[in-house]
Amino acid sequence: MATTLHYLGPKGSFTHQAALEASRLIDDAGECVAEPNVTAIFDAVGRREGWGVIAWENNVEGYVVPNLDALIDADDVVGFARIGIDISFDALVKPNHTKLTTICAHPHGLAQCTGFIADRDLAVRPTASNAAACRDITDDQVALAPSVCADIYGLDVLARSVQDFSGGRTEFLVLAPRDDARRQLGAIRAQGAVQANGERDFESIVAFILLNTGPGVLANLLDVLRYAGLNMTSFISRPIKGNDGTYSFIATFDAAPWQPQFKAALSQVLAHGDWVKTLAVYPRRERPSPPVSAWMLPQGGVHLDDTTTSWNDDPETDRELLWK
Amino acid sequence: MATTLHYLGPKGSFTHQAALEASRLIDDAGECVAEPNVTAIFDAVGRREGWGVIAWENNVEGYVVPNLDALIDADDVVGFARIGIDISFDALVKPNHTKLTTICAHPHGLAQCTGFIADRDLAVRPTASNAAACRDITDDQVALAPSVCADIYGLDVLARSVQDFSGGRTEFLVLAPRDDARRQLGAIRAQGAVQANGERDFESIVAFILLNTGPGVLANLLDVLRYAGLNMTSFISRPIKGNDGTYSFIATFDAAPWQPQFKAALSQVLAHGDWVKTLAVYPRRERPSPPVSAWMLPQGGVHLDDTTTSWNDDPETDRELLWK
Repeated sequence: MATTLHYLGPKGSFTHQAALEASRLIDDAGECVAEPNVTAIFDAVGRREGWGVIAWENNVEGYVVPNLDALIDADDVVGFARIGIDISFDALVKPNHTKLTTICAHPHGLAQCTGFIADRDLAVRPTASNAAACRDITDDQVALAPSVCADIYGLDVLARSVQDFSGGRTEFLVLAPRDDARRQLGAIRAQGAVQANGERDFESIVAFILLNTGPGVLANLLDVLRYAGLNMTSFISRPIKGNDGTYSFIATFDAAPWQPQFKAALSQVLAHGDWVKTLAVYPRRERPSPPVSAWMLPQGGVHLDDTTTSWNDDPETDRELLWK
Repeated sequence: MATTLHYLGPKGSFTHQAALEASRLIDDAGECVAEPNVTAIFDAVGRREGWGVIAWENNVEGYVVPNLDALIDADDVVGFARIGIDISFDALVKPNHTKLTTICAHPHGLAQCTGFIADRDLAVRPTASNAAACRDITDDQVALAPSVCADIYGLDVLARSVQDFSGGRTEFLVLAPRDDARRQLGAIRAQGAVQANGERDFESIVAFILLNTGPGVLANLLDVLRYAGLNMTSFISRPIKGNDGTYSFIATFDAAPWQPQFKAALSQVLAHGDWVKTLAVYPRRERPSPPVSAWMLPQGGVHLDDTTTSWNDDPETDRELLWK
């Protein structure tokens, strides 16, 4: 039987679009069901009523931290797939609309489409969500919403991709109880002899809490990961929920925890007395990995170049580092 | 002459509240001026038309990543003060209001006060901002907004702190051109012989970009900081703007870059060929720093305890780490 996918509603949200994509890509994934909040999604997965889809990271806004905190704290829930969705707004209207006077969307949607709104000289009306703008649309209104809303709410597309900034992208995780996730990952491992060693490439997100505190504990942790030859693509620290001043570390690796070197590194961290939890394992995504060249650097700052003689008495270095 | 503080408007936003607090705490800080977006704030500071106030980190949502990216990329702008504001909503009404039927706020404000709204049985009306709800309030409406809005918009307080969750807090940075910031920090250093060594304690936020890539480069960076005995309280990686797959690292330290050990560590990083920029230096905040105890740990996960014999064949470890 196909597995229900629980996502953050209302219908027609970007998370809904991610859930539909997950339903298309993942064997055994079925109907998508809107939930009122993220807690309800974790609860549904915890009660084994299906899988969940949550927003994880956006290339402009960074991590969706409340969802990250919830996954760290969830019992028996793990990510097993990662889905990317381009953040793009379509301008939608009723099929027999009259003269258009007003444009409606969540304030975030309105803020992301200022050029389109100014060009059309429309009055602006904020709504509780982009989907609510579609649901409650009147004959003289334009709604800004994800493209999936045209079908859902029976609307016509006035214009596609009307956002000011193209290139916005949000990544979502598909969550399951741990035994379900293991079965899904096992099936992928069984299919895919893409690598020389017979393993398909995976990525993992792992949370660490260092129970032995003091200077250098983080560097010690990273030493273990370095000696294992693991490629880390993202790393953040987060206060432990409800305990200001205590931290967890969340890292994304180009490896699966069952690969011998990774497994040995995790064993070493455990033997050191620290807390470890795998938050997600999913097939590796294609990612660019260009070298960093000087022309890519932000404005200001300091780095070694042909003209550097000594930083110590250099006014520019002093200005950028405030080190005097 | 007092220095103008540029903040993200409209008047009565939480950033406005932070700007008023900064104006009260910092010598030479004067009038607060609302700007339409964060770019306008950086531009005003860059043109030396005053200082800026930007949201930096929230204890629930994490870093305000677009502001972090903007500060990394800004030329000659640095933070020199950090201001914390409790995220609290007051229910505001017109002085001679009629029967109250409707409650207005930005969708985020509405979502954070669901208990109050349900208790009073009010119809919900989203607005573009909490301040807009106050500005456009009618006789039968309640506006949810920061407490500073009562004065600004001439409204009465129906109820204080009506948010569902108490304990939300956002930290703001006060930004200045680098020479201005140095003067301000110099004045604080001159006043404060609070420490045995005559230095007042400071914190710093520093951005690093590793120009030599390859496995272990991050661990190498952290080694240098560890050997300098620096206490790091926050650490994240961020893609370099416009260059997917390239990363900067942003770390917060309990030290000032002019302190000899920190300065030596930064010199070593520079000598290694990497890029460094100080994003902020400000007086140290009081922070709890409790040891991490087992009862503070999230649900699930694995750590060493009295019952651990071997992780290798332990089904629970296997379940939490997905390492088989």
